[in-house]
Amino acid sequence: MKEVQIGMIGYKFMGKAHSHAYRDLPMFFPDAPAPVMNAICGRDEAGVREAAKRFGWAHAVTDWRELVARPDIDVVDINAPSDAHKEIAIAAAKAGKHLFCEKPLALSLADAREMLAAAEAAGVKHMAGLNYRFAPAIRLAKKLIEEGRIGRIHHFRAVFLQDWLVDPAFPLVWRLKKEVAGSGSHGDLNAHLIDLARYLVGEINEVAGMSETFVRRRPIAESMSGLNAQGSADGPSGEVTVDDATLFLARFAGGALGSFEATRFAAGHRCTNGFEINGSEGSLRFDFERMNELEVYFTGDADDVQGFRRVLATDPAHAYMEAWWPPGHTIGFEHTFVHEALELMEAIRDDRQPEPNFRDGIRCQEVLEAVDISIAERRWVAIAELKEDDHD
Amino acid sequence: MKEVQIGMIGYKFMGKAHSHAYRDLPMFFPDAPAPVMNAICGRDEAGVREAAKRFGWAHAVTDWRELVARPDIDVVDINAPSDAHKEIAIAAAKAGKHLFCEKPLALSLADAREMLAAAEAAGVKHMAGLNYRFAPAIRLAKKLIEEGRIGRIHHFRAVFLQDWLVDPAFPLVWRLKKEVAGSGSHGDLNAHLIDLARYLVGEINEVAGMSETFVRRRPIAESMSGLNAQGSADGPSGEVTVDDATLFLARFAGGALGSFEATRFAAGHRCTNGFEINGSEGSLRFDFERMNELEVYFTGDADDVQGFRRVLATDPAHAYMEAWWPPGHTIGFEHTFVHEALELMEAIRDDRQPEPNFRDGIRCQEVLEAVDISIAERRWVAIAELKEDDHD
Amino acid sequence: MKEVQIGMIGYKFMGKAHSHAYRDLPMFFPDAPAPVMNAICGRDEAGVREAAKRFGWAHAVTDWRELVARPDIDVVDINAPSDAHKEIAIAAAKAGKHLFCEKPLALSLADAREMLAAAEAAGVKHMAGLNYRFAPAIRLAKKLIEEGRIGRIHHFRAVFLQDWLVDPAFPLVWRLKKEVAGSGSHGDLNAHLIDLARYLVGEINEVAGMSETFVRRRPIAESMSGLNAQGSADGPSGEVTVDDATLFLARFAGGALGSFEATRFAAGHRCTNGFEINGSEGSLRFDFERMNELEVYFTGDADDVQGFRRVLATDPAHAYMEAWWPPGHTIGFEHTFVHEALELMEAIRDDRQPEPNFRDGIRCQEVLEAVDISIAERRWVAIAELKEDDHD
Amino acid sequence: MKEVQIGMIGYKFMGKAHSHAYRDLPMFFPDAPAPVMNAICGRDEAGVREAAKRFGWAHAVTDWRELVARPDIDVVDINAPSDAHKEIAIAAAKAGKHLFCEKPLALSLADAREMLAAAEAAGVKHMAGLNYRFAPAIRLAKKLIEEGRIGRIHHFRAVFLQDWLVDPAFPLVWRLKKEVAGSGSHGDLNAHLIDLARYLVGEINEVAGMSETFVRRRPIAESMSGLNAQGSADGPSGEVTVDDATLFLARFAGGALGSFEATRFAAGHRCTNGFEINGSEGSLRFDFERMNELEVYFTGDADDVQGFRRVLATDPAHAYMEAWWPPGHTIGFEHTFVHEALELMEAIRDDRQPEPNFRDGIRCQEVLEAVDISIAERRWVAIAELKEDDHD
Repeated sequence: MKEVQIGMIGYKFMGKAHSHAYRDLPMFFPDAPAPVMNAICGRDEAGVREAAKRFGWAHAVTDWRELVARPDIDVVDINAPSDAHKEIAIAAAKAGKHLFCEKPLALSLADAREMLAAAEAAGVKHMAGLNYRFAPAIRLAKKLIEEGRIGRIHHFRAVFLQDWLVDPAFPLVWRLKKEVAGSGSHGDLNAHLIDLARYLVGEINEVAGMSETFVRRRPIAESMSGLNAQGSADGPSGEVTVDDATLFLARFAGGALGSFEATRFAAGHRCTNGFEINGSEGSLRFDFERMNELEVYFTGDADDVQGFRRVLATDPAHAYMEAWWPPGHTIGFEHTFVHEALELMEAIRDDRQPEPNFRDGIRCQEVLEAVDISIAERRWVAIAELKEDDHD
Repeated sequence: MKEVQIGMIGYKFMGKAHSHAYRDLPMFFPDAPAPVMNAICGRDEAGVREAAKRFGWAHAVTDWRELVARPDIDVVDINAPSDAHKEIAIAAAKAGKHLFCEKPLALSLADAREMLAAAEAAGVKHMAGLNYRFAPAIRLAKKLIEEGRIGRIHHFRAVFLQDWLVDPAFPLVWRLKKEVAGSGSHGDLNAHLIDLARYLVGEINEVAGMSETFVRRRPIAESMSGLNAQGSADGPSGEVTVDDATLFLARFAGGALGSFEATRFAAGHRCTNGFEINGSEGSLRFDFERMNELEVYFTGDADDVQGFRRVLATDPAHAYMEAWWPPGHTIGFEHTFVHEALELMEAIRDDRQPEPNFRDGIRCQEVLEAVDISIAERRWVAIAELKEDDHD
Repeated sequence: MKEVQIGMIGYKFMGKAHSHAYRDLPMFFPDAPAPVMNAICGRDEAGVREAAKRFGWAHAVTDWRELVARPDIDVVDINAPSDAHKEIAIAAAKAGKHLFCEKPLALSLADAREMLAAAEAAGVKHMAGLNYRFAPAIRLAKKLIEEGRIGRIHHFRAVFLQDWLVDPAFPLVWRLKKEVAGSGSHGDLNAHLIDLARYLVGEINEVAGMSETFVRRRPIAESMSGLNAQGSADGPSGEVTVDDATLFLARFAGGALGSFEATRFAAGHRCTNGFEINGSEGSLRFDFERMNELEVYFTGDADDVQGFRRVLATDPAHAYMEAWWPPGHTIGFEHTFVHEALELMEAIRDDRQPEPNFRDGIRCQEVLEAVDISIAERRWVAIAELKEDDHD
Repeated sequence: MKEVQIGMIGYKFMGKAHSHAYRDLPMFFPDAPAPVMNAICGRDEAGVREAAKRFGWAHAVTDWRELVARPDIDVVDINAPSDAHKEIAIAAAKAGKHLFCEKPLALSLADAREMLAAAEAAGVKHMAGLNYRFAPAIRLAKKLIEEGRIGRIHHFRAVFLQDWLVDPAFPLVWRLKKEVAGSGSHGDLNAHLIDLARYLVGEINEVAGMSETFVRRRPIAESMSGLNAQGSADGPSGEVTVDDATLFLARFAGGALGSFEATRFAAGHRCTNGFEINGSEGSLRFDFERMNELEVYFTGDADDVQGFRRVLATDPAHAYMEAWWPPGHTIGFEHTFVHEALELMEAIRDDRQPEPNFRDGIRCQEVLEAVDISIAERRWVAIAELKEDDHD
């Protein structure tokens, strides 16, 4: 297999990131099958035509059913708004397409499970878009843990801090409406932390959470792209129906204690996706604003030189980096998507499920929903309460 | 009033820190009443004599009742193990002595309340030993908050991370025995975080917590001073009866969300007492391992130069610093005790209660106990549940 | 003008970086003329064919004269080894091609001047490849200085620290041979620092330098790409004929004092291209290993909150960033080349010389050579000593 | 020997630091001979009486000759302004007193040599006040170097950055007058860097320097204590006769290259005394504003976890720290003087010369003067040019 034909639905922030990944992949990882940017789909004809031209897609369509039906498509890449994921994914699976779906998989756990069932019934590959796993520093963390160099893990504490909602005049964009986004900071940001926690530390047994919406009405927005938006403080306002911040405590199956916090009200933090892990043999620390770095501590270091090391994960010893630039020459946010696309291409070539896949997306969704229940019922909730007997 | 006669009970880690504070105070803050190091008390005669000589106390006694009874003592400074606080404090109050008691005030909230009642009945000053308030960087944080420069507070997240228990061969010192220490990382470390939270953000309404003892048996220790100890891995072992780590979520009366974590299992952290506060106008960040620094962010900074500032709180604009050295010349841990002693001297001179006092110690204890109940009953606990109708 | 046809000579480290820039440019900066990757040239036929395919060039040739002669080429991009720059550039200029030449322009100042003369005689655009100017954080530094927000500049101190030569078994690659590379750390690394100094602070009047070659013989290398190389410690060795480290002091025309250091022997530094600027109103600090950040200090900040701010230059207020990702989503090394290519495209479209151009390359070369003279003659050397009466 | 009687001349910034050291020493280092604060001397009677009372000296005198003549004095501690050092030191030596003289020893190398000759003729101990050597992090650096853990040293680069002169309205204090201070940033700040360089890397062979006085006239000051001063911008002004900034390059006897910079015009730096050392096996980094930390890098670390470690030098494995507080509890500027006084006490007890002593002060002075000559004559100056045939 030399090439994989891609059809993509959605062309905003994630659509741009995925498109760039497909463009870069063959140049930096020439040994993998090359993604072919076949068709892109969006509801606005002018918008999708412009995106196709700019991003480099051969065809532009406005009906996702048309795209899903095309015989010249191998993979359907779904990064449309979250409320559209389920229907598209199921249809694409039925059409025999491999699936690559941005997180969150769906608006509910039940929907996500339907999507997985459809994918499994169709025998297609299913990948969940959780890009942070693909930072070289995160891969290094994984390697150190797997090799036992951090020992038994006692603590995982993570925060995903943003500040784009601190200004009460920021408008009511779609991410603040429950019916479209499903959830606020919780589904958007904690989803990433939960995936990293599972990837690095393992499954979570139980959770207890708390959330808040600090600003309950906001001006109605005109348009939004990425996290930028236009609105007017004098015009009409609407209700924010998602959480501004959600925190929770967790107990891992392996015995570690977890602390999670997602907020869009942390002034000064544009995108602090950070965590620390403390084990019996050492500790690890990561902050996405310095994504090329991993701080590493070993209890076994000589007595007089114990301290966290700032490891710049740009050496040949670090995953992916030989494909890019010499040591010390850093990469950025977008590169995580190139590595994610690489995993998808290699999984298809090797006829295995990519990681993370829909099962990971569902595990993540289970924790998110357990936290929601915990908040509603003011109690600890075991993840096992959400399990289906016959399925997972 | 020119001088204040001190009698101190206890001469280990805190006794050393307090002694040094009394020695330094007159040199650096000559306008305050001078503490006179009159008598020191400890159960071991040789030990207390040696401490008296080394630290500079005029007299050494082995019976705290004798010290409390001395007519030439104005203040009784209690830094003996926690289980002795109550009896001494009540006796000293009855003898008309001002009280300066290390945290935690007592092993239980009920005991702490008895102590306050005794102090109030006797009309004496009562100070609680919560030294971190007295770091210049913390005073700066307080000032910025009080002046509204951070705006309305949305988030307080704090950790007190130590690592002296990561090694399972570390012995069973008194701090690991519930009957002496009352509690583990929770009472020892969260107590400080709660006091800082109350000082900076305000009262807490409700909490939900989680705790763990990772290593449940340890070798029996011979002796312990400070956090150092001697033990033998081959000898007999005993049960650890306190928590190694305790985390909790909190909701403040003012609407902020709080996250607290105390642990002695955070490899690589000798003494990270750190927090971050996010407000509507800015943020603050502190880490005791860099205690001379406060990181400060303002949302109102010009668009192109927004970022956390590393403020070195050693300028004349910062509390206490003109008494010490020129800007850029840092101070250390022990200086917080000098400032604490200054507050006590000035409160006595001005005939007012020092801050923090036993009421603060009780507020802190209420939160600690609410967390304990929350952990035992696996539910959210309102601080109001612990209030006495007629007292607080 | 919608498109610009590119012919590129060289396909190793810089060839890869330039190729990627041409690929990315139309997607992220669609309003600029699009570079068309027409033809690539290299001496090894298999190698250049492979590079053409991988990087996305339409044609591959092995004779640079053929490439220069093609009528369908608008720009000749020269990133072959330094000793080939002059001949190619002059021929390309004579053929009426715009020039884009990697630094250093040539092996000597005299050669560089010939290249400029040829470009001017032909009336073509001439750009010098000094990519670090194009980091958003550097653009922010430039803006703050130009707007007077840092005041009069007193100090510029810069280091370019690498460590790939610390191991004496590292082989004798072409960068260590004077006849090919022209110079060692001086021409390779100080060239960048000098360009940044000129860009941000202004012209240099005089210099005094010092250099050293710590390891004078090394194993002969087989091959080298980027900074990686293969060699054998047991095989034959050869002489290192360039400097491992070169330092110099400088006095700027505007009165500032400068300190420059380039070395490949700074263990722990993969690529620390860093500087600090101190002015009468504030200071700036940059480190390429954290290239998305600029530290900024203002003397005018309120007395109690003075400190260096860590500005993450990923906001819409920062140059280029609206084209990429939302705030807090960082970019990497390669993006500087995209911005560099953007400048070239826009300069051609607007019929103006790009910045930096060959004049900047020559100014940089003058300083480099003045330092060389200073080292040889152990004295201060004025840049004016190297000026041609009739030209610069 | 149990006690050492001290007589001290000077009672401003350094007098305060020394006094505090004598007060603290017996409490924290009880095994050393105890300094007895016998007599303090200053020209202003009220001032010196006040200082004696505040700092804890038994007697106050206004004539240093009286102090030097007292039979009950063992050590004369000289921290008066630099122009008074020589006469006092020689007289004290003749009176058989041990000498403890703040840096710079004298206004000239010749004077410093006379002082050493006097001390040697009298057979007394002579200590130079270079306190930074006594930071635990610096001791750790020394240990790592001595044990060969950093390998052969290639680079030493150091800066001492302050900013108290950036404001042109800052008054003309004594430190800005050559006849009193001897020199500006060079003698004040580079002296410390040179001493650290010698202590850690070894002797310097040759230097080439540059200096500048950015603000040449300043308002005349009324009074000055420490680095604070009062002045009036409208009143009369006077000429600044010392350097605001001095930089120099150096070549060490061992082959390392050195870069030194001292300035009082580095906005944002209150007291950045920092350096980095690069060796063949690792690197070290220090910044006095974070004086409890040493950053350490080892080339021998595993390939995937190479990085600078932030070592908090507060563990029992670090010099002096067991005498203070538990790990993670930091110390400050003043503690360096306690350790310095400890060295003096132990040297007297053990009948050996303390380190650093007058010979170190002279070595330092030689480098300072070689730089001055280099600046005046615009050439490299070998330290050997300043050597006396018959003495050093």
